[in-house]
Amino acid sequence: MTAAVPTVSDADAAVILARCEELARHSSLTDGIERTYLSAEHAAVNYRVAGWMAAAGLTTWQDAAGNQCARLSGRTRGLPALMLGSHLDTVRAAGRYDGILGVLVAITVAGRIAASGRPLPFALEIAAFGDEEGTRFGTTLLGSRAVAGTWLESWWDLRDASGTSLREAFAAFGLDPAKVGDAARAPQELVGYLEAHIEQGPVLEEENRALGVVTGIAGARRFLLTVTGSAGHSGTPWPRRRDALAGAAECITTIERIARAEGLTATVGHLRVFPDAVNVIPGKVEFSLDLRAPDDADRDRGWTLIEAALTDICATRALHLDSNQVHEAAAVACSPRLRAAIAAGIRSTEGGAEAPAEPAPRELPSIAGHDAMAIAAITDVGMLFVRCAGGISHHPDESVTSADVALAVDALEAAVRALAADYPAR
Amino acid sequence: MTAAVPTVSDADAAVILARCEELARHSSLTDGIERTYLSAEHAAVNYRVAGWMAAAGLTTWQDAAGNQCARLSGRTRGLPALMLGSHLDTVRAAGRYDGILGVLVAITVAGRIAASGRPLPFALEIAAFGDEEGTRFGTTLLGSRAVAGTWLESWWDLRDASGTSLREAFAAFGLDPAKVGDAARAPQELVGYLEAHIEQGPVLEEENRALGVVTGIAGARRFLLTVTGSAGHSGTPWPRRRDALAGAAECITTIERIARAEGLTATVGHLRVFPDAVNVIPGKVEFSLDLRAPDDADRDRGWTLIEAALTDICATRALHLDSNQVHEAAAVACSPRLRAAIAAGIRSTEGGAEAPAEPAPRELPSIAGHDAMAIAAITDVGMLFVRCAGGISHHPDESVTSADVALAVDALEAAVRALAADYPAR
Repeated sequence: MTAAVPTVSDADAAVILARCEELARHSSLTDGIERTYLSAEHAAVNYRVAGWMAAAGLTTWQDAAGNQCARLSGRTRGLPALMLGSHLDTVRAAGRYDGILGVLVAITVAGRIAASGRPLPFALEIAAFGDEEGTRFGTTLLGSRAVAGTWLESWWDLRDASGTSLREAFAAFGLDPAKVGDAARAPQELVGYLEAHIEQGPVLEEENRALGVVTGIAGARRFLLTVTGSAGHSGTPWPRRRDALAGAAECITTIERIARAEGLTATVGHLRVFPDAVNVIPGKVEFSLDLRAPDDADRDRGWTLIEAALTDICATRALHLDSNQVHEAAAVACSPRLRAAIAAGIRSTEGGAEAPAEPAPRELPSIAGHDAMAIAAITDVGMLFVRCAGGISHHPDESVTSADVALAVDALEAAVRALAADYPAR
Repeated sequence: MTAAVPTVSDADAAVILARCEELARHSSLTDGIERTYLSAEHAAVNYRVAGWMAAAGLTTWQDAAGNQCARLSGRTRGLPALMLGSHLDTVRAAGRYDGILGVLVAITVAGRIAASGRPLPFALEIAAFGDEEGTRFGTTLLGSRAVAGTWLESWWDLRDASGTSLREAFAAFGLDPAKVGDAARAPQELVGYLEAHIEQGPVLEEENRALGVVTGIAGARRFLLTVTGSAGHSGTPWPRRRDALAGAAECITTIERIARAEGLTATVGHLRVFPDAVNVIPGKVEFSLDLRAPDDADRDRGWTLIEAALTDICATRALHLDSNQVHEAAAVACSPRLRAAIAAGIRSTEGGAEAPAEPAPRELPSIAGHDAMAIAAITDVGMLFVRCAGGISHHPDESVTSADVALAVDALEAAVRALAADYPAR
């Protein structure tokens, strides 16, 4: 299964990893990676990625929402396109691969097909989305929702931490808010959407597999919860305390207990204390809850249990609980046709005649959200997962191996060829 | 016990409450009260309070640390002084009475004695301290520690939220850092220190008493605790999570449980999450712990229990716990001589011949810290507590009644007279 002489795939993987390193240097932080929507760093990576797209033989453009796009014609001009994509934006203190790897693998695959002399029966497009994480404006998937045509008018007034509205950020980036609709694609223009992405979980690593087929993407609900008590001097005796932080702490441990018992994934990632002084009992605490499950009904039943338990805790402590849902995304199933193509792509990487019989490719759900969730509104979606070290993501320690990246390129290319062989779909 | 016609004491109380309202308008906030050390508001209230001190017949000066001071001579010039004091600074989003009431009651008492034609066998001084709460520089009792001569050189580099050092703030206020030692008073200059203050607890209200004698002031220890885990994507499955906020939440509920069981007062008033994003597992959380008990040994045993429990919680969760003590104040006992004088003062307010037999004045500890803790380094201290509504303090809802303030003025005056009658102390 191994060769001492580097293969073309090894060389391609080395280029991809070097490009990940280069993009990581475009950051608003001096001591880590952060690249947000419509920032100067966003413009810089679009420019750099456009260059790599053009070098691969693709026609490039930045769309009306700031997504960096590219297209390779099929056998004839004007064919519908298979879209390959992921995102170039990051969370704060991010890793190098979440989103970025998928864009760069797609460019390499498109470059191979462009150079192959064997054009596809459909066009190939690449979408490098400008916002998936929602780091700057608090709402995720802005880039891919522009492409899906599900942009909401209410978003224009979202503001970043410095008070800049999304509308103002558009103008500052050189985009016309009135034209965001031009980024939207119609279902008939598309054959489907494939996204390669690091797993962001430990399954593939634990099972010693490089790649996996995503069955679907977990739905998420996000809430902003506010616990209100009464501020007071830190010397106040116990019976008179209405400590919002003590109550919130009990809420957080309870969320964890219920979510584990119910098989949900729950995260309290944001918390703020008011007035936040060493010698004052907290009068108010606000915190976020991100709740995910592969099945929407399981997730919704979990929220009902959590909300009831938190209401009880607050009532017992004479605190007031306020809960507001700020985001809801339904679970998205990957299309059987695209799952089969990705599985065929993975099988094609599993050695030649001398290879031992391999088990069927691992199928697994994605608990993390992805651009594919938004694009599912206009076309079938499929995802290829790549093993990442320790299941770690959204952290500087994100890591992939060059060997796995080489396999991902081979598998995604083979998946595209498998779709072509079967096109139009039977 | 009641009179339909307002008494002199009623009128004095009305003036004091009107002055509390007036000082409350000197705030750095538009929607609440905040008055910090060496701020423009500090200068403004010193000027206003100096005017009231002068109108009461006292000689006034601002000392080398920005405390507003006043003196009324005794029978002869140059006698040692009984100091009456409290503070004019506030926490953020404060009430109107914490500290301020004690200064204004002292001014009224001094004015009555000045006008009485019955000079004391000692001088009377008033100290309106500029910093007790530590709101601006994070270290409490700066004003009274300057007077006590326990100022620390290391404080000069403390910085406020905007980066201004204490040294720079001194200069901006018109004070010379090199001369802060001039504010220090010697033990032989003082007869003792009396402070009137709202109770900041519910005991007097629950027992239907206006006033109480403080037995001592609880010692406090403050810690900055840091829980470190690993940031990660909010979709990360449970076995791979090292969630610093979930761990901190369990720590906070455990602190509450242990402190209640051990009879300690514990407050987590400050908490900050890193990176504090909805979709990222918290990698680090820092939070404060303020731990108090009337007895230092009880408090220290409680901290040992808490630290062991928190270490266990973090070990179980694969988190790292770091704890740093940032403040320690020993419990201070009020002097028997001054407690007796205050008790005599309270008894003198409890009606004439027609009054029913009153129980002895209530003695109770102070869980909150006070300027008296610092002044105890140079002279005996005693404190008079005034009932406050609901035990609430450090909150806009702080409230006292005019009738209780009238009794406080009468009791403090009578306590001063009782000390005079017994002076020099037997």
